[in-house]
Amino acid sequence: MEKIKQRMNEQGIEVLLITNPSNMNYISGYDAWSFYVHQMLVVIIDEEQPIWIGREMDANGVKLTTWIGQDNIISYSDDYIHSTTKHPMEFVANILKEIGQATRNIGVEMETHYFSARSYERLQSKLPDASFFDASTLVNWVRIIKSDSEIEYMKKAANIVELAMQKGYETINVGVRECDVAANIFHSQVKGTDQFGGDYPAIVPMLPSGIKTSTPHITWSDERYKHGDTVILELAGCYKRYHSPMARTLVIGNPSTKVSDLSQVVLEGINETLAAIKPGLTCEEVEEVWRKSIEKKGYQKKSRIGYSVGLSYPPDWGEHTASLRKGDHTVLQPNMVFHLIPGIWYDDYGVEISETFRVTETGIETLANFPRELYIKS
Amino acid sequence: MEKIKQRMNEQGIEVLLITNPSNMNYISGYDAWSFYVHQMLVVIIDEEQPIWIGREMDANGVKLTTWIGQDNIISYSDDYIHSTTKHPMEFVANILKEIGQATRNIGVEMETHYFSARSYERLQSKLPDASFFDASTLVNWVRIIKSDSEIEYMKKAANIVELAMQKGYETINVGVRECDVAANIFHSQVKGTDQFGGDYPAIVPMLPSGIKTSTPHITWSDERYKHGDTVILELAGCYKRYHSPMARTLVIGNPSTKVSDLSQVVLEGINETLAAIKPGLTCEEVEEVWRKSIEKKGYQKKSRIGYSVGLSYPPDWGEHTASLRKGDHTVLQPNMVFHLIPGIWYDDYGVEISETFRVTETGIETLANFPRELYIKS
Repeated sequence: MEKIKQRMNEQGIEVLLITNPSNMNYISGYDAWSFYVHQMLVVIIDEEQPIWIGREMDANGVKLTTWIGQDNIISYSDDYIHSTTKHPMEFVANILKEIGQATRNIGVEMETHYFSARSYERLQSKLPDASFFDASTLVNWVRIIKSDSEIEYMKKAANIVELAMQKGYETINVGVRECDVAANIFHSQVKGTDQFGGDYPAIVPMLPSGIKTSTPHITWSDERYKHGDTVILELAGCYKRYHSPMARTLVIGNPSTKVSDLSQVVLEGINETLAAIKPGLTCEEVEEVWRKSIEKKGYQKKSRIGYSVGLSYPPDWGEHTASLRKGDHTVLQPNMVFHLIPGIWYDDYGVEISETFRVTETGIETLANFPRELYIKS
Repeated sequence: MEKIKQRMNEQGIEVLLITNPSNMNYISGYDAWSFYVHQMLVVIIDEEQPIWIGREMDANGVKLTTWIGQDNIISYSDDYIHSTTKHPMEFVANILKEIGQATRNIGVEMETHYFSARSYERLQSKLPDASFFDASTLVNWVRIIKSDSEIEYMKKAANIVELAMQKGYETINVGVRECDVAANIFHSQVKGTDQFGGDYPAIVPMLPSGIKTSTPHITWSDERYKHGDTVILELAGCYKRYHSPMARTLVIGNPSTKVSDLSQVVLEGINETLAAIKPGLTCEEVEEVWRKSIEKKGYQKKSRIGYSVGLSYPPDWGEHTASLRKGDHTVLQPNMVFHLIPGIWYDDYGVEISETFRVTETGIETLANFPRELYIKS
């Protein structure tokens, strides 16, 4: 809260309306699948506790999962849900008026999945004396450096993704349906280990196979794997909403020369990049190491090669702050965590191999410990 | 497309920007977990095919899952992703200018999860000569009456939810961890049947237990069930993105009088309501049957008792059109499908029992066939 208020001060924001569920959880611990309706935390620069505003039936969940006091839990009635005549932001505007916050500088998350265009329009029209500021990633940037206990959570998530990936390797085979592999992976992700259970990752397993490996975000079907299929597995382990993603590529039988060559290039690029990373480097300098590595072999990749990860809710496990790419001048510091995923896709095939790594005092450590290779299923 | 264009005509919309992934799938078949970045279908009133605009690496997925021609697949470069200097809607605005659509009446989905406040702001500022209209649920309302093949998909989803619920019943027991039950449920949902595979539901299993049954949207932990626990299971089966949700309540051991009494009231209310529903009734008349049923026993419920369901992506399986509640004058017609979920929650317990039903020519049929009762796990 202190760091958030410091940033609010710097940006001249007196009242911050937090609608990104990851940011709501980060501040208060609030955890429920209620983000499909309008809800928020209101952080007021000169008040100690945030206020939760949400749907009536979700208020008991705030009592159960957060440290927010009863007086700061305010809920709107159910007729605001999917109504054509009422909007929850009108309710929010009224609350802000009642508590004397209607004429202040209000920060809103303009670029989060759970603050709609209409939400912004209604707030503006109902609070004509407020000034609005874009605070889209204000809290996200506070989240970029993890505490040691956050790192512990992410390492537990990494234990889970190792199990889930192993389960994928074991299950994929000629004649097996894609959905049966996905089912086993989900089972591993949610069961977790005997010591701690798993949480739902912010993205479901992405399992493109065959020609579908030409694009990264295809999920699965009930078709059966064939001999010679290439399969990309991009998964995360999740522990108490903290993620460790990992991607691998598998071939059933012998890989084609092009898949084999591309994998070698990607692996060498990852190895050289991970070896070079240390605190003080910028994100674009990391990308440059990768770029030079693959250029030696005549390859190119236009998209970013990674991004900051941590606490997340669907639909994305990325933190939406730093990206490993040209033009990003973020300086790496200890306990930042990135998903390095330099996938390369062509018109009829692709390869993804990735690692989630923590920046240490001197270099990096990968969170998972899993063979980094093109896996040949024989 | 014809029905959508008819509604566009009625509302004076010439260009419709569709960002809701369910609506994108409904029109084009597009299916990938790419909705966490900006993407859309552009439907132009006097053009036959829609245009897909999205991220470069996702363009191959459009070729693989839709009937949209190569010329109508337009992608933006990766440096638009989570950028602080560029926004994908600037790219979209430029495309609309190039194809002569920049001065027309443009409909946007103001209240969908995947069209941000900033998206709207950028479009407005880059297209000063366009007029913007709120078309939030234009396509959703076309979807409310299902075709026979959509009903077939939803019945397959209902087969899956029966299996998943049964798996939950079998697995919940004293000393078992909540996460292990969730893992088994996920496995059933994704595996599907031997004849057809399952897809990921738009909401993960919600499994509040004990005092957490006082609120509906808590997921699971790695705690172990205790004798006497009440557990609510709210799940969906999903087949090719079509959903059949179902909720049940289970008690390990003997239910308390209050849980037993509340279940009886809910069950009788559901039975009376389902018996009364037929085409021609309005949504509020359906709710009235329910309300009168529970009032006889001295109970009240303020929140809506159901909503239209079908094709969906996370974070919600509801269609955001008709709700079964006071004030909703939507007239029921054959092949509308609703999730009737009249949950009641108090400060330390709650009960949810639900059915997904199709309106027939003469009444209703439930999609799933699963004992409607408070389940006693002995």
